[in-house]
Amino acid sequence: MSASLIESGQPNTFVFIPMLYVVWEDAVLTPSELHTLQGLLDQQQWLGPEDRQLLQRYLNPKLPPSPQEFKAWYHAIRSVHIEPGNNLAEIGVRLAHHLGNGLFKGLPTEALGSLQEIESVLGVISAESIYHFYPERRKTITEQQVTASAFSVTALQQLLEGDQHALINRVKRIISDPEFFYTDPTQLENYRARVLKWCQLLADQGFGAYAYPTTVGGKEDLAGYFTIMETLSYHDLSLVVKFGVQFGLWGMSVYLLGTEKHHEKYLRSIGTLDLPGCFAMTETGHGSNVRGIETTATYNHAQGTFIIHTPHVHAQKEYIGNAALHGRMATVFAKLIIDGKDYGVSAFVVPLRDDRGHVLPGVTIEDCGRKLGLNGVDNGKIRFHQVVIPKENLLDRFAQVDAAGKFTSPIASDNRRFFTMLGALVGGRIGIPRSGLSAAKSGLTIAIRYGDKRTQFGPEGAPEVPILNYRTHQRRLMPLLANAYALHFALQYVTQRYIQRQEEEMQEIEALAAGLKAFATWNTTHTLQECREACGGKGYLSENRLDALKADTDIYTTFEGDNTVLMQLVAKSRLTEFKQTFSNMNVLGLMNYAAQVAGTSLTEMNPFTIRDTDEEHLLDFEFHLNAFRYRERDILTSAAKRLRRLIQSGMDSFDAFNVCQHHLVEVGHAYVERIILEQFQRQVLATADPGVQRILRTLCQLFALHHFDQHKGWYLENGYMEGAKTKAIRKLLNQLCWDVRKEAVPLVDAFAIPEVCLAAPIAARLS
Amino acid sequence: MSASLIESGQPNTFVFIPMLYVVWEDAVLTPSELHTLQGLLDQQQWLGPEDRQLLQRYLNPKLPPSPQEFKAWYHAIRSVHIEPGNNLAEIGVRLAHHLGNGLFKGLPTEALGSLQEIESVLGVISAESIYHFYPERRKTITEQQVTASAFSVTALQQLLEGDQHALINRVKRIISDPEFFYTDPTQLENYRARVLKWCQLLADQGFGAYAYPTTVGGKEDLAGYFTIMETLSYHDLSLVVKFGVQFGLWGMSVYLLGTEKHHEKYLRSIGTLDLPGCFAMTETGHGSNVRGIETTATYNHAQGTFIIHTPHVHAQKEYIGNAALHGRMATVFAKLIIDGKDYGVSAFVVPLRDDRGHVLPGVTIEDCGRKLGLNGVDNGKIRFHQVVIPKENLLDRFAQVDAAGKFTSPIASDNRRFFTMLGALVGGRIGIPRSGLSAAKSGLTIAIRYGDKRTQFGPEGAPEVPILNYRTHQRRLMPLLANAYALHFALQYVTQRYIQRQEEEMQEIEALAAGLKAFATWNTTHTLQECREACGGKGYLSENRLDALKADTDIYTTFEGDNTVLMQLVAKSRLTEFKQTFSNMNVLGLMNYAAQVAGTSLTEMNPFTIRDTDEEHLLDFEFHLNAFRYRERDILTSAAKRLRRLIQSGMDSFDAFNVCQHHLVEVGHAYVERIILEQFQRQVLATADPGVQRILRTLCQLFALHHFDQHKGWYLENGYMEGAKTKAIRKLLNQLCWDVRKEAVPLVDAFAIPEVCLAAPIAARLS
Repeated sequence: MSASLIESGQPNTFVFIPMLYVVWEDAVLTPSELHTLQGLLDQQQWLGPEDRQLLQRYLNPKLPPSPQEFKAWYHAIRSVHIEPGNNLAEIGVRLAHHLGNGLFKGLPTEALGSLQEIESVLGVISAESIYHFYPERRKTITEQQVTASAFSVTALQQLLEGDQHALINRVKRIISDPEFFYTDPTQLENYRARVLKWCQLLADQGFGAYAYPTTVGGKEDLAGYFTIMETLSYHDLSLVVKFGVQFGLWGMSVYLLGTEKHHEKYLRSIGTLDLPGCFAMTETGHGSNVRGIETTATYNHAQGTFIIHTPHVHAQKEYIGNAALHGRMATVFAKLIIDGKDYGVSAFVVPLRDDRGHVLPGVTIEDCGRKLGLNGVDNGKIRFHQVVIPKENLLDRFAQVDAAGKFTSPIASDNRRFFTMLGALVGGRIGIPRSGLSAAKSGLTIAIRYGDKRTQFGPEGAPEVPILNYRTHQRRLMPLLANAYALHFALQYVTQRYIQRQEEEMQEIEALAAGLKAFATWNTTHTLQECREACGGKGYLSENRLDALKADTDIYTTFEGDNTVLMQLVAKSRLTEFKQTFSNMNVLGLMNYAAQVAGTSLTEMNPFTIRDTDEEHLLDFEFHLNAFRYRERDILTSAAKRLRRLIQSGMDSFDAFNVCQHHLVEVGHAYVERIILEQFQRQVLATADPGVQRILRTLCQLFALHHFDQHKGWYLENGYMEGAKTKAIRKLLNQLCWDVRKEAVPLVDAFAIPEVCLAAPIAARLS
Repeated sequence: MSASLIESGQPNTFVFIPMLYVVWEDAVLTPSELHTLQGLLDQQQWLGPEDRQLLQRYLNPKLPPSPQEFKAWYHAIRSVHIEPGNNLAEIGVRLAHHLGNGLFKGLPTEALGSLQEIESVLGVISAESIYHFYPERRKTITEQQVTASAFSVTALQQLLEGDQHALINRVKRIISDPEFFYTDPTQLENYRARVLKWCQLLADQGFGAYAYPTTVGGKEDLAGYFTIMETLSYHDLSLVVKFGVQFGLWGMSVYLLGTEKHHEKYLRSIGTLDLPGCFAMTETGHGSNVRGIETTATYNHAQGTFIIHTPHVHAQKEYIGNAALHGRMATVFAKLIIDGKDYGVSAFVVPLRDDRGHVLPGVTIEDCGRKLGLNGVDNGKIRFHQVVIPKENLLDRFAQVDAAGKFTSPIASDNRRFFTMLGALVGGRIGIPRSGLSAAKSGLTIAIRYGDKRTQFGPEGAPEVPILNYRTHQRRLMPLLANAYALHFALQYVTQRYIQRQEEEMQEIEALAAGLKAFATWNTTHTLQECREACGGKGYLSENRLDALKADTDIYTTFEGDNTVLMQLVAKSRLTEFKQTFSNMNVLGLMNYAAQVAGTSLTEMNPFTIRDTDEEHLLDFEFHLNAFRYRERDILTSAAKRLRRLIQSGMDSFDAFNVCQHHLVEVGHAYVERIILEQFQRQVLATADPGVQRILRTLCQLFALHHFDQHKGWYLENGYMEGAKTKAIRKLLNQLCWDVRKEAVPLVDAFAIPEVCLAAPIAARLS
C-alpha cells in the first residue's frame, strides 16, 4: 500500500481530509456521495495531477483507508481550531495550513464556494459530524440539565399528608421494622404465613379496627383507615389486600350490612384478627354481574334457619381472599328464598372453619392456586352443600325476615336493595385506587431516581448524559408524575365526600368513586409499565421491585368492579343526572342553559380562541377547566341524544346501550377527568407556600396539556381547537416536561416513601 | 299497613302502577320525580277523592311499597300484552282493564296525553324499564350475534404457514410431547434444569443447528430457524430465550463474526448443545449505548494473546443468558487495545467454565437472581480479571490482528465497524418480534375463546350474553386481532428481505427490523395486557397462562435494543435515505417530486376528499395506503426541516436531536406502520381463496381504520381529514369490529396453536 494522505506531503490534498473523514465515518459510501465527491474533485482546477491521483484512491468503495490512517485524520482534524458554524471546506483549509508546513498556498476564492456544496449533500449527518471535531465541545443544553429544587420538599410532603401526618408516620415506622422485611413471594406457604403474621402485627397496633365503632375497640375513623391502607401500600401489596379483605371487606360488610347484634358479636374479634373472615360475593359464573349470583339462602320456617346452598359448580364462590387457608367465617351473598319466592340478593354470615381451622361439614374449599400476583393472599373457591345457619346470621340492615317468616325491607325493589347494599360498600372503590396510587408513586420514585443517575449516550467525546435528560424519557414519565399528584388530590376529595356523605349524595359519590377507581387503577397499570420499560433490564430484575408492583396491582383494574363496566355505571349515573337537570328546569332554566351553550360558542369557540396559541392562554387555568367541561358536557349530551334517537327508532334499549357503549365509556372518562382537574386546580389555588404552589401549578398545567394532547383528536374533531393550537400545546407540553424534569427527584422525594420499603437498589439515594 | 293498590279494587288507580313501578325500581325517588308525579296526579280530574288518597300514599319517599306489593305489580304488568313503543300510560290503561274486572271505564282522551308527559321526565331510563315488562322480549341484536365462519380455517392456516408447514408441524409435535409439559416456574432450580433439558431435546432433533452450514451439521436454513423460534413460542418462553441465546446469539455470533476456523472449531458442538455458551455484550454501565462498553481485550505481542479484563464493576457483563449456570464459553465484546491504542469494539471467544462446569480462574460469575419473567433462563453477571485467551479467539471477520501485531480491517472507522458487526447480528431483531407475536396470538386465542363463551349481563329476563358481543370488548380485542395478522405478514416480509439481502440493502433492512421489532413487541405487551383484563379474574390465575405470557414477553421491548432507542435509529436511517433521495435528484427528479407533493394536495387533500364519508371510499385500499404514505412523508420531511433549522440556528446537533426526539420516534412509527399496511394489502391481493381473501381484506381494513382512529389527532391537525370524516371512520371501525367478532374464534383457530401448549382451561375448546 502506498503512503498515507498526510504522509504524502501534498498539502492541497489535506483540504479534503475532513470531507473524506465524514464520508468514511458514518454512512455507507453511497453512489451519490461518490458521484458528488468525484464531480467536486473534477472541478478543482487548482489541484495538480498528483493531488488528483492521490485523492482518487480514497473514492473507491472497495478500498477504504486503513483504520490507522483514519484515526490519524481524526487526530489531525481535532488539532486545528474549529468553531461552531464552520463547514467541512473551511476546516479542510485550516487543516492544510496547519499540516502544510507553510507549503499550502490557500484556495482560490471560487474553489471554497464549490467545495461547500458538499455540505448540502451530506446534510444533517455532516453537520453532526463536525461536532465530533471540536477538541473542546461546548457543554450542550442537554448535558447541563441537573436536578435542582426551588421548593421545600418538606412543605410539599406536609401538604400531601395534611392532618394524617402522625398516623402516616406511625404506619411507616411499623412497616419499616425488621419484622416487615420482604419475603420471597415464590415460597407460597411461607409467604402466606408471613402476610398473615404482618396483618396480626398491624391488628395488634389497633390498625385493623380503625374504622369500627369505639364500642368494639375501634376509633370510628374511616379517614384514618384509608390512610392506613394507602400507607401500607408502600409495602408488600399482598399485605394490603389481605388487610383489606379482613378489616375492610369482611369487617365492613358486617358493620355496614349488619346491625347492632352483629357488631357486638363479631366486630371486636374481626378487628383483632381473632376472627379471620372472607367476603364471598363473586361466583365463577357471576363477577361483573353480581346481581345474577345463584347461591341460595332458603328460609326454613320450622327451624327459623337459612339453608345456604351452591346449586351448581358455576355458582361456587371464587377468588375469595382469606378462603383457602385462614378464613373462619364469611359474609356470603345469596338469593334469599322464602316459600319458593326469590327476594333478591342478601348477605349472610356463614361459618367456614372451626376454631382449629378445620373446614366445616357441607363446606368445600379449594385453593385458587398461583396467580399473576398477590400470592401472599390465599384466594379460594367455596361451595356450600345445604349448610344451615341461624336466622340471625342474615345481615339485616336492608332486609329482614320477621317473626312470621315474612320478608320485609325499607326498599321495595330487589335490584335497588342490592345496589343500595353495594353502595354501602363503596369504600372499597376508594381504598383500591388509593392503594394503586401508592404503588404508582413507588414505581415513579424508582424510575425517576434511576433516570436521574443512569447515564447513556452523550455528545461525541463528552460524558454520557442522564437518561432523564432525554426528551422521550421525560415525555414518558413527567405526565405520569403529574397524574400521580392530580390523583392524590382527587382521591382525597372522594374520600372526604364519602366520609361526609348525605343520603341524597350517594348516587353522585358512587359514580365519583367508580370513575376514579377505574381511571386511577388504569393509570397505575400504565405508570408501572412505563416505569419498568424506563428502567430497561434493571426494571426486569425482581430486586428492583417493579415486577411485584406491576404484578400485584394488575388485578386492581378488575377488583371492585371491572373498569370498563364501572365507566358504564358512571355514564348511566351521569345520564340520570343529566335527565334530572333537564327535567328540573323551568322555562327560565332552559333559556339559561341554551344561553350557556351559546355563550360557550361565543367566548370559547370563536375563531380567535380556537387558534389562540399564546402561551399565557395555553397555561390558563380557566381555559383548561372550560375545555374539560365543554368536552364533558358535549360527550354526555351527544350520548343522551344518540341513545334517545336509537330507542325512538324502535331499537331495543339493551341494543341501544350496546351500540353506544364505547361512547358511554367516554362519558365516564370525560367526567372523571374534569373532576380531577377541578380538584387539582382548587388545591393549587388553596396552597399558601409560594414555592410549593409554583411547582403544583406547573404540574397541574402539565396534567391539562397532556390531556389536551391525548385528546386532541376529539378537540379538533369538534372544532374546539384548530391544528395550530394543538401543535402549540404539544410544544408547550414538551417544554413543561423539560422544566418539571429538573424537580422530578424532589417531587418523588415528597412522596416520602420509606427507603426500606422502596428497597430497589437502583433507587438507593446514595449510591 | 293498609291494603295494597291491587287489592284496593279501585281500578282507576291501576293506571298508575307501571309509572310507580318505574319510579320505585331503578333510581332514587328524586324530588323532581315526585314533583312531576304529584303535578300529574293533581291534573287528573277523572280520579275520585279515594283514588287520589290511595295513590298519594305511594308518593312518599319515606314510605315505599312493600317488597311483596312491588313484586305483585311486576307480575301484574307482565300479564298484560305489551308491544315495543308502548308507553307507561298505555300500559297502565291496559292493566286497569285487565285487573279491573270490567269496572274500569277507560280514560278521558285528554288524560292519556297528560299522563304521557311522564315519559319525558323518566326519559331513557323509563324506556329501558318498559323492556322489563315484556313477558316475551324479542331477541335483541346483541344476543343474536354468534360465532360463525364463512371461510376455511384450514385454508387460512395454510396461507399463514406457507412452505414452512411441515417444519411447523414437526416442532409442534415435539413441544406437545409429554416431556414438554409445563413445569412450575417458581421452582427456580428445577425450572432451569427443565428448560436446559428441553433445549437438549430440540438440539437432538437438529433444530439448534438449523441455520448453520451443512458442513457443521446444519441445514443452512435461516428461514427454518426463525420458524422454529416462532413455533416454540407457543410453548414456554424461557425455553425460546434459552434456545435463542444458545443457537442464535452464541452460535450466530461465532458464525457471522467469526471465520472458517471458528466455524470448524465450535459450531458443530454449539448446534448439538455440547458446548453451551453466552453472548456477552451488555454491561451494567452500557446497555443501549453498547458502543461505549469498557471491557478491554489488550493484545500481548510477546505471547500472541489477548488479555480480557473488566476494569471496574460497571463494566461487568450483565443479564447474560446461560451465564449463571450452563455457559462454558462466551462471545465477549471488548475494546481491542494494541500498544495502548483503542481500535473499538471487537468480539472474542472466551472460556468461562471447564468441562465439569467449574468456573475458570479469573472469571467471576454472579446470578442475576429472580426476574419479572423468563426465570427458566439463568442470567448472570460476568467479570474478567486479566483472562488470557489465544489470538485466534478474536472473531475476525471484520477485524484482524496480523502476524506483526498490526490491526487491520476492511472498515476504517471503529464506529462503522462496530455497527457493521451489529448489523450482521440483526437476525435477533427478527426472532424476538416473531416470538412476541406468537405470544400475542396465544393471548388472543385465550381471550377470544373465553369471550365467546363467557356470558355476563343481558336484556332483562333474557339469558346472559357472551361478553364478546359487547361493543367495548370488541373494540378492545378485534383491532389487536387485526394487528396480529398484519404483523404476521410484515414479519414474514422482513424475514424474507433479510434472508435474500444484498449488501447495499443492509441499512434499509436494519431499519426495517429495528422498527418492526419495536412496533411488534410494544404490540405484544399491549395485546397481552388487554387480554388479561378482558379475562377478568380468570386472566389473573396462573393456570390460564396470561401471567406467564405477559411476564416473559415484558422484556421484549428492551431486548435487542430498547424500543424507543430503536425507533430513533429508524428515524436516523430514514433521514439519511431522505437526504440521499433529495441529493440524487436532478432537476427533472425535483420537478417530479414537487409535482407529486402538489398532486397529493390536488387529489387527496381537496375539500371534497378530506370530508368524504362514503363507505366505499373509507374502505378503499388506495385511500388507506395514500394516507399512511402521506403521513410518513410529512412527518419525515417536517422532522428533517426542523433539525436543519435548529442546527443552522447554531444549536449543537446533539441538542437538536434531543429537542426533536419525540418527533423522530414518530418518524419511526409512521414508517413501520406504512410498511405493515403495504405488506398486508399485498397479501390480501395475492390471496386466491375467496373466503380467506374476504376475511383478510376486512382485517386489513380494520387495521387501517383503527390506525386512523388512533392517529386522528394527526390527520385532523394536518388538514388531511375533517371531523366529519374521522367520525365516520370511528363508526365504520365499530361496525368492522362487530363484523369481525363473528369470525374471531375461527380467526384465532387458524393460528393453530397446539391445545396442550395453550393449556389455559378457560380456552379449552370443548368445555
